[in-house]
Amino acid sequence: MNRSRMEPLGVPESDYGYSEAHEARRDPTALDRWLVSQITRRLGEKSPVRLTLWNEPDLTPRDGTIVVRLKSRQALLQLLFNPDLHFGDLFSTGRIEVRGDLVRLLEEAYRYTSENTHLATWLARGRRLAPDLSESKRNIHHHYDIGNEFYKLWLDREALQYTCAYYADPAMTIEQAQQAKMHHVCRKLRLKPGELVVEAGSGWGGFAIFMAKNYGAQVRSFNISREQVAYARSWAEREGLTKQVEFIEDDYRNLTGTYDVFVSIGMLEHVGAGNYRELGGLMSRALTPTGRGLVHTIGRDVPAALNAWINKRIFPGAYPPTLREMMDLFEPNGLSVLDVENIRLHYAKTLEAWLARYEENVDAVGSMFDEAFVRAWRLYLAGSIAAFTTGKLQLFQVLFARSGVNEVPWTRADVYAERP
Amino acid sequence: MNRSRMEPLGVPESDYGYSEAHEARRDPTALDRWLVSQITRRLGEKSPVRLTLWNEPDLTPRDGTIVVRLKSRQALLQLLFNPDLHFGDLFSTGRIEVRGDLVRLLEEAYRYTSENTHLATWLARGRRLAPDLSESKRNIHHHYDIGNEFYKLWLDREALQYTCAYYADPAMTIEQAQQAKMHHVCRKLRLKPGELVVEAGSGWGGFAIFMAKNYGAQVRSFNISREQVAYARSWAEREGLTKQVEFIEDDYRNLTGTYDVFVSIGMLEHVGAGNYRELGGLMSRALTPTGRGLVHTIGRDVPAALNAWINKRIFPGAYPPTLREMMDLFEPNGLSVLDVENIRLHYAKTLEAWLARYEENVDAVGSMFDEAFVRAWRLYLAGSIAAFTTGKLQLFQVLFARSGVNEVPWTRADVYAERP
Repeated sequence: MNRSRMEPLGVPESDYGYSEAHEARRDPTALDRWLVSQITRRLGEKSPVRLTLWNEPDLTPRDGTIVVRLKSRQALLQLLFNPDLHFGDLFSTGRIEVRGDLVRLLEEAYRYTSENTHLATWLARGRRLAPDLSESKRNIHHHYDIGNEFYKLWLDREALQYTCAYYADPAMTIEQAQQAKMHHVCRKLRLKPGELVVEAGSGWGGFAIFMAKNYGAQVRSFNISREQVAYARSWAEREGLTKQVEFIEDDYRNLTGTYDVFVSIGMLEHVGAGNYRELGGLMSRALTPTGRGLVHTIGRDVPAALNAWINKRIFPGAYPPTLREMMDLFEPNGLSVLDVENIRLHYAKTLEAWLARYEENVDAVGSMFDEAFVRAWRLYLAGSIAAFTTGKLQLFQVLFARSGVNEVPWTRADVYAERP
Repeated sequence: MNRSRMEPLGVPESDYGYSEAHEARRDPTALDRWLVSQITRRLGEKSPVRLTLWNEPDLTPRDGTIVVRLKSRQALLQLLFNPDLHFGDLFSTGRIEVRGDLVRLLEEAYRYTSENTHLATWLARGRRLAPDLSESKRNIHHHYDIGNEFYKLWLDREALQYTCAYYADPAMTIEQAQQAKMHHVCRKLRLKPGELVVEAGSGWGGFAIFMAKNYGAQVRSFNISREQVAYARSWAEREGLTKQVEFIEDDYRNLTGTYDVFVSIGMLEHVGAGNYRELGGLMSRALTPTGRGLVHTIGRDVPAALNAWINKRIFPGAYPPTLREMMDLFEPNGLSVLDVENIRLHYAKTLEAWLARYEENVDAVGSMFDEAFVRAWRLYLAGSIAAFTTGKLQLFQVLFARSGVNEVPWTRADVYAERP
């Protein structure tokens, strides 16, 4: 594993201009306590969160309380100044410690910030993220090329799906729910044997291979993550499916040809709202006259930028759109929306499964990366659960076809029909 | 029946400034023929439409051709100048005659105009229809108060539904499909016995009574059409449901109280895009914390004003929104979209059933209204079929709840489950 990839998470203490170790030896002042009371007041009387400061006696969480220990004045000030951005680094580097339910803490934080997003909302409306090709490559490399072995430690073991699963039955395992997700998408698309499919964003190739194997589709799949494409190609070879599945290491913007089906699961988040109109034009040109398409993406009820820390440390350049913003894909490009499903709570459940498996394998993660990385990814997974349970994030599946095409499904009953 | 209500359709010949009868005796000139060739060229070589002029030999439609006979130069010029607006009046007053398939002719016209809507689209974007209370009353009176007996001649006989039916099975009768539509909406809303429902737009009360009778709901329903409310009240009395269903002759804007369910079928078309944000605020305030809502409306893939003739003669002030425009209901009002279904083709089938029944009862219509009315409504029904089959109009059902509420359906499978 190449440790240099960890660089963005290795926050050196010198970033903070003076020694926190020294700071931590000084007792909290009245001002420090007043600042803490400001945070506590905002969280509300009923909040289970208890804040403690450096040099104060530690508390034991009980009856569902969550103890957040700020280990220096610097941590307290940073948390007050920009909690969205700084909490992540403070937590990752151990300068904030949490005892108790991390997900619950982050749910409280999301609920609290819901009343304070007006400025963020306004800023997000003005900003039209539109990464160009080289920017997209850097962004994707940052996240997806940190090592296939790392993701294999906690994703489902059958299809390596790094997107929301579909728990047709809540008792399903993550493996079953990822298979169910892929079936759900194929059924919505009414995918038939021999049909030509183009996929924008392959991941590790699990869905392309699934479509070929289970639905007899002929698949071309685009991805700009070199590590993922290499993995996907060798997987298709092992399955003997190289004649049915082709993985192309290229940007979706270079897609050519026409297809019966366009599908994209978990790529739109990386496209940027400023590029939707162009992507929609490409989707439209890629479809045969009676072709169908499906876009599966994290979304929002109201426009807002991605959490600042996640944008800085985990997913540079990512943006979850509202349904209104997504209409730039369809409306200017002669496409008609047939069906939208919001399966937000399924992503919370998916993430719970991932986090549980992550903790089971945390020693293996620790042997690959440093402690800050281990804590950062724990926070990212827990925070994502909280974002979906509190409704800060949504999960939209949007089915579409060309405007005015009448070869569309009559009802959705067939999607839910029992299969032999 | 009060004939004065027909006034908007009684277009006097003097409107056109000179005698068409005189005009029609003069032979078409080379210029007239050149103008006709301009229309023919736009329709394309493969078009089944044949245009004939006054004083020319009449053609018999065969092999699927459609003969359109322009009975004066005035008719030709008006058709060229603004076909959307004038075709309706020319057809209603018999100054244009159509022999052959009227729906097919209108489908050709819709397809042809699809390439010419850029200006209309742009104008529609700029215009934000927002009728106030008294304007809404006038508009609704114009359409819905022309006589319950008239609508009973051609709507389904069980529930008098003047909105898109749901053909769960394409072989259903219109009566069965309207029952299926109401079940479909109640299932999406997961309506339970004893729940409090508010309905915006009652029609003749069929759906409110259906919810009370079949789902044990307690319903308050708002409508500003006096004739419809009177009809609905006496219907509820006949059914012995006055304790479960209350019809209120008032505008949705005066709605008070909180409810488990908000539902509106076929009213949004009359609200005007400029009022969506306000209506959404009202929907949000009307819902209990875990309440659900559904809006069923005619819509568009791209923004455009309603056909000018329909707006003038049939539905003043109506506007079918795009999904993007509909987001004004949800996004600013803390509401989350759970499910969108587009059942456009079901409306074409519904309208086919209505038109067939209209023709079966055309003599009865003729005894109530003049010939221009009879022809105008034939055109309106046929034109609406064409608008849905060509995709100029859509039919959206949007299910929603408050943002972040987790008491939402886990999947949609229960909507499609077999019932005992």
